Amino acid sequence: MNMMAATVSDDQLERRSARKRRAIVEAAAKLFLQSGYLGTNMDEVANLACVSKQTVYKQFSSKETLFIEIVTSMVNAGSDAVHDAVPRFVDGADLAEYLCDYAYRQLRVVLTPQLMQLRRMVIGEVGRFPELGANLYKAGPKRAMAAFAATLSDLAERRLLAIKDPANAASHFNWLIMSAPVNEAMLLGDRAIPNRARLRRHAEQGVRVFLAAYGTGKKLPVRSGPARRPRS
Amino acid sequence: MNMMAATVSDDQLERRSARKRRAIVEAAAKLFLQSGYLGTNMDEVANLACVSKQTVYKQFSSKETLFIEIVTSMVNAGSDAVHDAVPRFVDGADLAEYLCDYAYRQLRVVLTPQLMQLRRMVIGEVGRFPELGANLYKAGPKRAMAAFAATLSDLAERRLLAIKDPANAASHFNWLIMSAPVNEAMLLGDRAIPNRARLRRHAEQGVRVFLAAYGTGKKLPVRSGPARRPRS
Repeated sequence: MNMMAATVSDDQLERRSARKRRAIVEAAAKLFLQSGYLGTNMDEVANLACVSKQTVYKQFSSKETLFIEIVTSMVNAGSDAVHDAVPRFVDGADLAEYLCDYAYRQLRVVLTPQLMQLRRMVIGEVGRFPELGANLYKAGPKRAMAAFAATLSDLAERRLLAIKDPANAASHFNWLIMSAPVNEAMLLGDRAIPNRARLRRHAEQGVRVFLAAYGTGKKLPVRSGPARRPRS
Repeated sequence: MNMMAATVSDDQLERRSARKRRAIVEAAAKLFLQSGYLGTNMDEVANLACVSKQTVYKQFSSKETLFIEIVTSMVNAGSDAVHDAVPRFVDGADLAEYLCDYAYRQLRVVLTPQLMQLRRMVIGEVGRFPELGANLYKAGPKRAMAAFAATLSDLAERRLLAIKDPANAASHFNWLIMSAPVNEAMLLGDRAIPNRARLRRHAEQGVRVFLAAYGTGKKLPVRSGPARRPRS
């Protein structure tokens, strides 16, 4: 009976500890994104999480550890969201539309204020935390380009695209699509994130350039009217 | 005689003041790039410039003023270097080579450790100093794209390129060329800046994609061997 009570109590303690850890992580994410690494202190994290400073230090041995944990988990969550369940191209479907959907989806997932703030913060801290920039590169553009290179290889093998160097073609696709809006958001702030219709239009124009370079020469319909209504 | 002496003395004072100002600006640029806005304090600036803290504050009323001055002047200097004396395309010359030279030149000017550090710092401080990000965007990619759009309009009027929307084509060119190396340098640090041969090769590949989309359909020689030796 006593042992049972002790077990329940351990569970409760564990749950409480996990709850506190989540509160700390959420508070720290908010503060780091708002004020950067140097502009955030552990007292503020403790206050916002409604825990004591000792509790913060029990969970995370230093501000540096907490920072690395926050950034790493946000980067991985963002990356997973981009790469979940990309469908394979179905023979006979519209290739330009397939590539547009792919591009638009990636734009929609990446161009959120939170991921843009994270990217700005990581870039600003590359001197102090080079491993975080390397992680973001690996989990972000590098992972996206590797996944897309595999898709392009498949499309080239099926003679739907004319590609000799899938990695290079994937890099061209990635930056044709992602660069303009991401770099604008980097320098002009979150208000520069385009709306859905502009993102769709941007994806279509990038795909048109990509297909001119890597298409098989068959004529593809070029839309020149207003942007289509976004699908999601 | 006395008036003459006073004038000389004023000149000397002015020169000394200008010399001190330059020393402060150089010291501050170094420290800001190294440690960021929050990580730099005016005592360190004064120490490195070998002047008193009062002298720093006589020249710049606050750390903020000094930071804005440093970033603005570095951005403008970098931008001027990109845009000095771009030659007009000569009829009968090799268009792919002309575009490659243009691209390579821009890559070489922008991809310096100092400009990459500046860009990282400005991005990291967009929340605190939004006007600096806006200035960098205006003096950097926006100015480059506007200048290149004018070049493309000229080439389209001369029927050397097939372009309906020069601003959009200039954006595609700019990001095909600049994105991959700049974004790698942003996240992976200065050691990721490619060497000249890789930059040249990268420019050639980007130009090939661009010409596939915007060329007039005449066959262009596609180099598939090793990168050419850079010219400058």
